[in-house]
Amino acid sequence: MRLVVLGAAGRMGRTLVELIAATPGARLSGALDRPDSPAIGSDAGTLAGLAPLGVIVTSDVDAALDGADGIIDFTAPSASVAFAAIAAERRLVHVIGTTGLGPDDAAAIAEAATRARIVKSGNMSLGVNLLAGLVEKAARALGPDAFDIEILEMHHRHKVDAPSGTALLLGEAAANGRAIDLAEASVRVRDGQTGPRAEGTIGFATLRGGSVVGEHSVILAGEGERLVLSHIATDRAIFARGAVRAALWANGQAPGLYGMRDVLGLTD
Amino acid sequence: MRLVVLGAAGRMGRTLVELIAATPGARLSGALDRPDSPAIGSDAGTLAGLAPLGVIVTSDVDAALDGADGIIDFTAPSASVAFAAIAAERRLVHVIGTTGLGPDDAAAIAEAATRARIVKSGNMSLGVNLLAGLVEKAARALGPDAFDIEILEMHHRHKVDAPSGTALLLGEAAANGRAIDLAEASVRVRDGQTGPRAEGTIGFATLRGGSVVGEHSVILAGEGERLVLSHIATDRAIFARGAVRAALWANGQAPGLYGMRDVLGLTD
Amino acid sequence: MRLVVLGAAGRMGRTLVELIAATPGARLSGALDRPDSPAIGSDAGTLAGLAPLGVIVTSDVDAALDGADGIIDFTAPSASVAFAAIAAERRLVHVIGTTGLGPDDAAAIAEAATRARIVKSGNMSLGVNLLAGLVEKAARALGPDAFDIEILEMHHRHKVDAPSGTALLLGEAAANGRAIDLAEASVRVRDGQTGPRAEGTIGFATLRGGSVVGEHSVILAGEGERLVLSHIATDRAIFARGAVRAALWANGQAPGLYGMRDVLGLTD
Amino acid sequence: MRLVVLGAAGRMGRTLVELIAATPGARLSGALDRPDSPAIGSDAGTLAGLAPLGVIVTSDVDAALDGADGIIDFTAPSASVAFAAIAAERRLVHVIGTTGLGPDDAAAIAEAATRARIVKSGNMSLGVNLLAGLVEKAARALGPDAFDIEILEMHHRHKVDAPSGTALLLGEAAANGRAIDLAEASVRVRDGQTGPRAEGTIGFATLRGGSVVGEHSVILAGEGERLVLSHIATDRAIFARGAVRAALWANGQAPGLYGMRDVLGLTD
Repeated sequence: MRLVVLGAAGRMGRTLVELIAATPGARLSGALDRPDSPAIGSDAGTLAGLAPLGVIVTSDVDAALDGADGIIDFTAPSASVAFAAIAAERRLVHVIGTTGLGPDDAAAIAEAATRARIVKSGNMSLGVNLLAGLVEKAARALGPDAFDIEILEMHHRHKVDAPSGTALLLGEAAANGRAIDLAEASVRVRDGQTGPRAEGTIGFATLRGGSVVGEHSVILAGEGERLVLSHIATDRAIFARGAVRAALWANGQAPGLYGMRDVLGLTD
Repeated sequence: MRLVVLGAAGRMGRTLVELIAATPGARLSGALDRPDSPAIGSDAGTLAGLAPLGVIVTSDVDAALDGADGIIDFTAPSASVAFAAIAAERRLVHVIGTTGLGPDDAAAIAEAATRARIVKSGNMSLGVNLLAGLVEKAARALGPDAFDIEILEMHHRHKVDAPSGTALLLGEAAANGRAIDLAEASVRVRDGQTGPRAEGTIGFATLRGGSVVGEHSVILAGEGERLVLSHIATDRAIFARGAVRAALWANGQAPGLYGMRDVLGLTD
Repeated sequence: MRLVVLGAAGRMGRTLVELIAATPGARLSGALDRPDSPAIGSDAGTLAGLAPLGVIVTSDVDAALDGADGIIDFTAPSASVAFAAIAAERRLVHVIGTTGLGPDDAAAIAEAATRARIVKSGNMSLGVNLLAGLVEKAARALGPDAFDIEILEMHHRHKVDAPSGTALLLGEAAANGRAIDLAEASVRVRDGQTGPRAEGTIGFATLRGGSVVGEHSVILAGEGERLVLSHIATDRAIFARGAVRAALWANGQAPGLYGMRDVLGLTD
Repeated sequence: MRLVVLGAAGRMGRTLVELIAATPGARLSGALDRPDSPAIGSDAGTLAGLAPLGVIVTSDVDAALDGADGIIDFTAPSASVAFAAIAAERRLVHVIGTTGLGPDDAAAIAEAATRARIVKSGNMSLGVNLLAGLVEKAARALGPDAFDIEILEMHHRHKVDAPSGTALLLGEAAANGRAIDLAEASVRVRDGQTGPRAEGTIGFATLRGGSVVGEHSVILAGEGERLVLSHIATDRAIFARGAVRAALWANGQAPGLYGMRDVLGLTD
């Protein structure tokens, strides 16, 4: 499978290049970055700390996508929406790990998925997607009359959005378990005179600092007892590995919008 | 349902007396304690901080069990085995929350359960029993080649055995998920030159201090990521509440040996 | 020392009544509550689960304060400001554990402390006040160029303000350690496109749920390592105990505004 | 300063080589490994993912130490004792980050330090050594009558000894704070019928799994409250960086046995 990496000179991009080079059945065929990137013209393998791969980082989309089967994309919402349209037109696999997507972005991506094979997830790791299944089950068993749900996340100081895509993914899992709508139940921030906690809400809290790769906890707090279900990521290679796995899986699927629980076979 | 509390003058006993008094459908009919207890002769309700209930704490087993439907027992292994035999003879419900039971104790209790209706659990709380189900599922999904399982518990300074019954219950859940035998896979302590961790083992670690009611974490640790599934109890009333619920449930069952997941309907 | 408890029929009020009754050198001389409280006219001891103390809960401030040496107050900002003025007029000890005080409230209380002996603290426990000292030391040693400071707190579902007074107290300790102004450095909430974390800021995050008495963590997150300094309270009696200790201590002091680190002798 | 790395082809050795190459004032002058290492004969820089440094990995101690000023050593107790003697003979700086040293090893190293300049620490990070100071202060303020001390650590599945050197270092800090002897107060494992916790003891618990770099918590648990002081390392480069810093610092000192708190200026 011939893969193109977006943001190939960035931290996640270089990890993806390294993993694709090491994955049987996958091959780097293109490496894109922004026109103003100092890496334009360099070999993508060299940038990733490997021997040269003969794939030069470019900002020319058509050249990079020539002959490609799929795109791996951990970029920004506007870029992901634009590339979903391109993937639809070219009938490509498009793996989207971008966070911070709004409702309009999601709608545009869903529309593209009528022709593209898109795997979109706020988190590509095995552990997080398993956690989402456990959270759904726990939220169903421990009802809102007795147990309050809170979601805590911590990431490194460079992260620009909050809450993380993974925190929202876990919130969706909790909301599914309780058959409620996350957007209506969410309490995104608390400051000042908030009044007592409203029953049935799902609260979010965000920490930022240091080099933390990504930590998430879902807390179900009742009278006299608490369940805390957590995932701790210490190496962002787990996300890259999941994205490459998703691309290989999607290559054999019909057009559509998929999640990591489809890829990992975790749907019941 | 007419219930007898063992160790009625102890901390857990008094909580049970208070809860039974507050539970529709349940009634305290007997209160037992050791012959040397200074509480012998006192009213069990008064000891629990309630109005007198007209049930006097006694060490006379026959008198206390006269007319009873069930026994609630958070005592010690030898007492629990003895009362299981009595429950078998009298065809009673016997709820056993005692920890530290050995294999011989368990065998004697299983034998008694051919005639008694016994609910036995290392932990009577809703949260812990739900957690056990999640642990089993996670242990199955995250195999021993990639994920190591560790179980950590902390309890107050007065606890006399280690690891806790709940830690072992969670270990059993993990072992079930992997279709292995806990006794063979357990690593109960580590000290000195241990060598590297053996694949497929389940490690235990124990903390003791202060007034901690009971905290348990099951850790599934892989390369670059970790799942941590925890339960935190802050009020021992959750155990008493579960025990009373178990007694009421068992009153309608055939003789047999049951667990809290049966009582709570958490078995799939 | 003759003490008056405000909000005597509430959860914290009853704990205070119980503790004062058990503390040598202290005696309950008055019990105040709101005019619409159903407890008006009841004996404060009976409400606290003790034998009657002969002190009737009233809403008549003058009657309750007659002959008193001090007031213990875990109420609301407006009430605390009003009672500080009364304490100034009557030259009383006033222990203030109220949270959610704004800058105007603090100024009014400081003014009252020119005549009253006021001990004011966002948290009356030994552990939290020791933690504040450790946080100050750590914030000084680990500079803002390399370590980001975040403060996380969790409380029960009934708490009406955020962040907690204790979280702010710990933030002040961190700001002192770095010789910066907390109000300028604080990031109280994060939601949406926040941009990267600004160097030198102190972030807050708030969780609410169940019956959690109070948990606080100060995180100092650097490149590749993190220090996490936490306090976990599981029994609100620790705050009541500290408040009674503060009242007895303040009885021997000159008028002024004191903190718990003065009471506990933790100032270096 | 001309530095020789022991175990230069191992994981920590390669990190050390990389850091020395990047540190002004330091230079790699020798790279040792065991005679059976497959890396013998390779360039140490290449092994570390750098351009060749012209330093070939060898098992010839005399050749490697020729002209050296110091040795950095994260190996095993027997090797560290042997190299301390060599460092004494050659008047070198010897930085020892080896864990699992017994009392005899420590005595031999102390004897060597009459002529060598030795920096020995169970943990070379800034954060851990600061934590040790905070633990000492907390253990002094919260006495054994009211607060129990427990030390928990988790490391990756490859670690061969328990508890970690850092856990013992933190235990020493706690014991110093209470003016007691750690060896007498330690409870290293708990299993079976342990009886209640003995007052004044310091308990240890060990977790192993996955790729965890190193996490330590010191818990001070009292009635109704707990202090938890933790350090989380996510990148072993923090230890290598501390070791190189220790070597440069020791180069200017008189012969003697030093710790990281000397190097970091954290001694009060």
